[in-house]
Amino acid sequence: RTQNMAEIGIGILGGGYMGKAHAVAMSAVGAVFNTKLRPRLEMVCATSPNSAERYRQAYGFQRATDDWRVLVKDPKVEALIIAAPQSSHRAVAEAAFALGKPVFCEKPLGASLADSQAMTAAAQASGCVNMVGFNYIRTPASQFARQLIADGELGEITMFRGEHTEDFYADPKTPASWRTNGQSSGALGDLGSHMINGALALIGPITRVMAETETVHKLRPGGAVTNDDHAQMMCRFESGAMGQMYFSRIATGRKMGYAYEITGTKGALRFDQEDQNAVWLYRTYGPEATRGFTKILTGPAHPDYEPFCQGPGHGTGYQDQIIIEARDFLAAIETNTTIWPSFRDGLEVNRVIAAATASARDSSWQDINPF
Amino acid sequence: RTQNMAEIGIGILGGGYMGKAHAVAMSAVGAVFNTKLRPRLEMVCATSPNSAERYRQAYGFQRATDDWRVLVKDPKVEALIIAAPQSSHRAVAEAAFALGKPVFCEKPLGASLADSQAMTAAAQASGCVNMVGFNYIRTPASQFARQLIADGELGEITMFRGEHTEDFYADPKTPASWRTNGQSSGALGDLGSHMINGALALIGPITRVMAETETVHKLRPGGAVTNDDHAQMMCRFESGAMGQMYFSRIATGRKMGYAYEITGTKGALRFDQEDQNAVWLYRTYGPEATRGFTKILTGPAHPDYEPFCQGPGHGTGYQDQIIIEARDFLAAIETNTTIWPSFRDGLEVNRVIAAATASARDSSWQDINPF
Amino acid sequence: RTQNMAEIGIGILGGGYMGKAHAVAMSAVGAVFNTKLRPRLEMVCATSPNSAERYRQAYGFQRATDDWRVLVKDPKVEALIIAAPQSSHRAVAEAAFALGKPVFCEKPLGASLADSQAMTAAAQASGCVNMVGFNYIRTPASQFARQLIADGELGEITMFRGEHTEDFYADPKTPASWRTNGQSSGALGDLGSHMINGALALIGPITRVMAETETVHKLRPGGAVTNDDHAQMMCRFESGAMGQMYFSRIATGRKMGYAYEITGTKGALRFDQEDQNAVWLYRTYGPEATRGFTKILTGPAHPDYEPFCQGPGHGTGYQDQIIIEARDFLAAIETNTTIWPSFRDGLEVNRVIAAATASARDSSWQDINPF
Amino acid sequence: RTQNMAEIGIGILGGGYMGKAHAVAMSAVGAVFNTKLRPRLEMVCATSPNSAERYRQAYGFQRATDDWRVLVKDPKVEALIIAAPQSSHRAVAEAAFALGKPVFCEKPLGASLADSQAMTAAAQASGCVNMVGFNYIRTPASQFARQLIADGELGEITMFRGEHTEDFYADPKTPASWRTNGQSSGALGDLGSHMINGALALIGPITRVMAETETVHKLRPGGAVTNDDHAQMMCRFESGAMGQMYFSRIATGRKMGYAYEITGTKGALRFDQEDQNAVWLYRTYGPEATRGFTKILTGPAHPDYEPFCQGPGHGTGYQDQIIIEARDFLAAIETNTTIWPSFRDGLEVNRVIAAATASARDSSWQDINPF
Ligand SMILES: NC(=O)C1=CN([C@@H]2O[C@H](COP(=O)(O)OP(=O)(O)OC[C@H]3O[C@@H](n4cnc5c(N)ncnc54)[C@H](O)[C@@H]3O)[C@@H](O)[C@H]2O)C=CC1
Ligand SMILES: NC(=O)C1=CN([C@@H]2O[C@H](COP(=O)(O)OP(=O)(O)OC[C@H]3O[C@@H](n4cnc5c(N)ncnc54)[C@H](O)[C@@H]3O)[C@@H](O)[C@H]2O)C=CC1
Ligand SMILES: NC(=O)C1=CN([C@@H]2O[C@H](COP(=O)(O)OP(=O)(O)OC[C@H]3O[C@@H](n4cnc5c(N)ncnc54)[C@H](O)[C@@H]3O)[C@@H](O)[C@H]2O)C=CC1
Ligand SMILES: NC(=O)C1=CN([C@@H]2O[C@H](COP(=O)(O)OP(=O)(O)OC[C@H]3O[C@@H](n4cnc5c(N)ncnc54)[C@H](O)[C@@H]3O)[C@@H](O)[C@H]2O)C=CC1
Repeated sequence: RTQNMAEIGIGILGGGYMGKAHAVAMSAVGAVFNTKLRPRLEMVCATSPNSAERYRQAYGFQRATDDWRVLVKDPKVEALIIAAPQSSHRAVAEAAFALGKPVFCEKPLGASLADSQAMTAAAQASGCVNMVGFNYIRTPASQFARQLIADGELGEITMFRGEHTEDFYADPKTPASWRTNGQSSGALGDLGSHMINGALALIGPITRVMAETETVHKLRPGGAVTNDDHAQMMCRFESGAMGQMYFSRIATGRKMGYAYEITGTKGALRFDQEDQNAVWLYRTYGPEATRGFTKILTGPAHPDYEPFCQGPGHGTGYQDQIIIEARDFLAAIETNTTIWPSFRDGLEVNRVIAAATASARDSSWQDINPF
Repeated sequence: RTQNMAEIGIGILGGGYMGKAHAVAMSAVGAVFNTKLRPRLEMVCATSPNSAERYRQAYGFQRATDDWRVLVKDPKVEALIIAAPQSSHRAVAEAAFALGKPVFCEKPLGASLADSQAMTAAAQASGCVNMVGFNYIRTPASQFARQLIADGELGEITMFRGEHTEDFYADPKTPASWRTNGQSSGALGDLGSHMINGALALIGPITRVMAETETVHKLRPGGAVTNDDHAQMMCRFESGAMGQMYFSRIATGRKMGYAYEITGTKGALRFDQEDQNAVWLYRTYGPEATRGFTKILTGPAHPDYEPFCQGPGHGTGYQDQIIIEARDFLAAIETNTTIWPSFRDGLEVNRVIAAATASARDSSWQDINPF
Repeated sequence: RTQNMAEIGIGILGGGYMGKAHAVAMSAVGAVFNTKLRPRLEMVCATSPNSAERYRQAYGFQRATDDWRVLVKDPKVEALIIAAPQSSHRAVAEAAFALGKPVFCEKPLGASLADSQAMTAAAQASGCVNMVGFNYIRTPASQFARQLIADGELGEITMFRGEHTEDFYADPKTPASWRTNGQSSGALGDLGSHMINGALALIGPITRVMAETETVHKLRPGGAVTNDDHAQMMCRFESGAMGQMYFSRIATGRKMGYAYEITGTKGALRFDQEDQNAVWLYRTYGPEATRGFTKILTGPAHPDYEPFCQGPGHGTGYQDQIIIEARDFLAAIETNTTIWPSFRDGLEVNRVIAAATASARDSSWQDINPF
Repeated sequence: RTQNMAEIGIGILGGGYMGKAHAVAMSAVGAVFNTKLRPRLEMVCATSPNSAERYRQAYGFQRATDDWRVLVKDPKVEALIIAAPQSSHRAVAEAAFALGKPVFCEKPLGASLADSQAMTAAAQASGCVNMVGFNYIRTPASQFARQLIADGELGEITMFRGEHTEDFYADPKTPASWRTNGQSSGALGDLGSHMINGALALIGPITRVMAETETVHKLRPGGAVTNDDHAQMMCRFESGAMGQMYFSRIATGRKMGYAYEITGTKGALRFDQEDQNAVWLYRTYGPEATRGFTKILTGPAHPDYEPFCQGPGHGTGYQDQIIIEARDFLAAIETNTTIWPSFRDGLEVNRVIAAATASARDSSWQDINPF
């Protein structure tokens, strides 16, 4: 674009929900974060030539294709974003790494534990930058929550409760889709991946789990449903904390229920993505009469807020999380250093999900080996 | 008191937290609910003559004693309220039933499952009115929630999440007491009894449980702690709904966290005792654009509210729950018909707690036989 | 009742909304607050012999009458509570004072400024205990708010916003009643009296006002409406703070909107009676990143809470406010010292209302002389 | 950029708070809204060559200048965005219109009523597209609120309460700046302009006002403060509704208090920008027992949400409001039709502010002639 900014050509697989989000993010990230590398929307890939062309034009890409191999191989595509269903993640990522290209992959990492393991191995073998799209933990609020816990503001954590609940499949008349088949697209595999990632980031490794999964609406227009509508889980963290989680796509009334409550010996905090610009913090300071949960509105004093707005409480939104991811992906490429969360972090999530799946099947606690 | 009101002499065991609450309730219930039977505070019993006399004078009883046998046997004591630690419940209740006297017993019913079974058997054998003090489920809000679910307003229930969390033992320097010993006084046995009762009332019988309990602060000034500080549980209801519960007395920041979220196929509701005059209701009516959780403030349109105030949103408080219990106890005596929740209902709670305790010990799911 | 408690015979004028509330309060106050004086419900007075007798029986009074003169004069009626429409307040209070009897009068004090002045003069001339029923400012939360401000926790107050909004007359089909006639029963005179009293208590004297009043629904089943449905007001306090108030009985959706927001140079607080057990406090302490409004749940650390419940967050309700008033009325009688808010405090409210009424009439600022 | 998209060269005056926001918006708007016209960041102008160059590089402009005349005249600058202090607005806008260029001007329109009048006249004389930056009313939530009212969902509006409160000048040690001088930069002129615009959009024309303004902190590091720190106002709308407003930059604890409550005969709604993704709606439908304020989370069912995210409750933020403005500015240019809010709408706001200023000076109601 201008003399002293290095450009990088971005290729995106998928032009749907997340393909668009990443295209917008790559358009805005330079101006928001004054990144050293400036992205150029080089090529978009979708299932048909028509849809690919439509996305190209709408989002402002240079070129379009309906063949992911073309996308991956194109020399002007210098970094890949995988924003297609999980069944596609492994092949595309492996091909990109084989060509030495950085990959940002939407969550969950692989369609299976085996896929995630293979993808992580390929990433590490290649030495390429690799990242997974756990965007919710990127809000200024959740980054701040993470900091507070790491700084010991809550004391020792005794309890973590997390949920990722939405209601997009609450209506049994909502048709079947790629989301209603395959473990990695069910409530546990798909929604659970976000919150398990959050739990790991906030509290640390999980050492054992006990879970249940269930398909409430087994038949939908368009076909049978073969994965879970909701799932619950109890767990223990390496730190000793108890954990309780719940994941649901049939949680009537819940729109973006990525929510957690964390209790420690010196304080507690609560967060709910439906009001993503607030963290509720309780601390055992001062006289009892003035204690309570403080509703802290995010602002320039919190991580990654100021680039979006100088005014506190003015608020960031969903799209801004993706812009934060884009900033990290570009920084990782520029410095050739993988930035959290890497494929390995995505794999850690899949290991917990695999243990939870086994637990649900066997009705028993499952240990998770150190990673 | 006046010609056409029948009086009844009330004896209360205990003059502490709950002994006082019941004394106040019995003073106010006649005027609030225009009860047919009007209570007379006949005798209070506490551990020492001094404390008993102090309570007598403060609460306005006629007489005082430090011997529960005197209390139970006194001919002017026509009905008993047991508001002393659970270790005392069984002996006192059995003695009262043997004399044909109605008994209201604070929760949890017995100090053990065996105690609860014996107490329930004694109650049933005697034919006396018997009731357990699960007061939180008595708020206009929770009564209304129960009605909504029973009326099918939420469709089929898919998920119940409940907690009873407080922080009165969050500080490890808080001394040991009768509350820190005995299963029935731990987080699961004491606090859990309220929420398990709530779950049974709202959703119906529980068929299996999986639980964990833990003592976080094992030593306190005054002695070792032998029961649990917090406990978590997953369960299934006979109706098929999943359940998740958590009980804690070390939940930093939580003061009265008797809270539940209930999701059904047609709606959802949320309640938190810390804002006890509100029910949050979501229903799948009307256009998507106007759907959301409605914060309904309790008022004369809800159960047992109007006698306290003609104005909606004006609010009832903790003490009013005990007055509602008093109304039912008096009505039960007057009509000689036991009113929910009876000792049997208290026993049902203890059966779930016993299964949860076994589950925590064995790290396995425990089935609960139909009751 | 018992040897060392002095009894006092209470007479109540009115058995409706507030007559009942005071009867219940007098039944409970002794046990709640361990008062030195113990009330005896001696006589209730209502408009007809039938209703008076009904109230007597329901609330547990000894006797009933339909003639307020009988009530006032009865030798066993040692203290009076006026809980009838404002048109009756003056004559009854004056008669009681003439007999040297303490009077608790429901708000607003008089039906007019002249009435309030006469009543205050009579009270002062008689030397009798006198009190006005501003109950909302009695919650533990509002008492605590008052303390915080008095202690300078908010710095210098720059802004006060208050409202008393309800919707009991939002529906134009709700029939006319005594409430729809007479300035002192309109939104400004009736509801405004509570919030103006609150403003005076929290912030101090008001020195000038500018107001507007309006009757939105001029005709109702049963007759014309001659007082205001809602009113707005700007004011200045002696301290220099700006003020803004709003009073409405047609505030659709508002059930108990006694709410205020107070901003000072060092902090701010918010309160809404619809969630009466919480105070929201902001203070400019500590790093910006952890500042926010703290939701403080009332508990034993706050004024007049513990007698109702030992557990914080367990909550008090509407009826408990009246019990707190009863405690003060009895204490005032016992010590023969008038306790805030006295008739003079009620008159101060009426002076502000009279100035606001003049302002609305003349469309101009009205000064209020020091009192 | 690509064959079938027409490009337009954008010039922005100012690279600070809002200059950056508009630069980001212009980078993202094409991909978000699939606009027909695609913006090219052609030139940025700031006070010094250094700062201009810094902005150019950071935001990705082609060129930079420190002379606004150069910016306006440059042939590749085809549309202007004025994001510099209000003192600059008039001259720049007039120069741009003289050259036939569309102008988007940040709020408030002019530095004085005379400026706003001249600017509106110039805009109309030129026939150029013109728009003012009232971004808060652009959230999906406020657009939806506007729709609800226009559709009569609340019945006839009886009351509007609005505030725009922040605390960026609450600390008296915060230094003086361009914001502390000039009526149009004080609380009434600057913050008030947003909320008055909101009031006009939501409720309609204002016919009279009564206001007070005040400078609480008269001296700051760096100089005297010559404009108001806070201001209050009562008003009447043409529709008959009462209005109450408050504007403050010293509202301790308030970060983004663009908030309103609107009451009508059939319903009510509330909005607070600090939780910008929610509208609270009360309607008088159905049984009393299920009525209450519904917290509606914005989603694809609401205006201008879906382009940002397919998931409801996922949330938009501050920056997204500016992207919505950019969409309208581009659409207006493309179709050569001015889109609300135009300079004339900005002028209407200034007329209300001028009347309020006169009212504060004269302590009297000021009528506002039909516009
Ligand atoms: N981080 C987050 O918040 C979210 C993440 N996701 C994840 O993003 C990924 C994509 O999901 P959505 O965008 O919701 O899906 P979508 O169904 O909206 O779009 C999928 C896109 O992928 C393209 N595609 C699918 N298979 C392809 C193939 N073999 N070759 C080329 N193009 C192909 C389709 O043409 C379409 O453009 C998934 O892994 C999903 O789990 C989805 C939604 C939210
Ligand atoms: N429903 C609710 O919200 C609550 C229920 N409870 C239950 O109420 C019961 C009492 O608890 P608190 O009132 O908190 O206890 P507390 O410790 O405040 O008071 C206990 C009272 O019992 C008396 N007492 C104890 N042992 C006695 C004996 N052998 N003979 C005579 N008097 C004896 C003591 O003198 C004291 O007056 C327990 O079962 C507890 O679980 C307690 C608190 C809240
Ligand atoms: N502090 C508060 O929260 C409230 C205060 N009030 C105030 O309480 C007072 C009473 O209002 P409500 O109880 O709502 O009225 P209500 O209409 O419910 O009851 C009025 C009672 O007064 C009796 N009464 C009326 N005129 C009488 C007369 N001349 N002689 C004997 N009895 C007479 C009636 O029989 C009836 O029992 C009013 O001053 C009102 O402003 C009312 C409601 C709430
Ligand atoms: N819509 C909204 O939410 C907001 C609107 N505003 C409005 O936006 C405008 C700008 O305010 P901010 O961005 O906060 O100011 P700022 O102080 O952050 O930035 C002002 C910019 O204008 C430039 N500038 C000033 N005078 C200039 C001149 N004569 N020639 C060239 N450049 C000049 C400065 O170099 C600087 O880059 C104002 O009208 C303000 O009222 C400000 C903040 C929020």
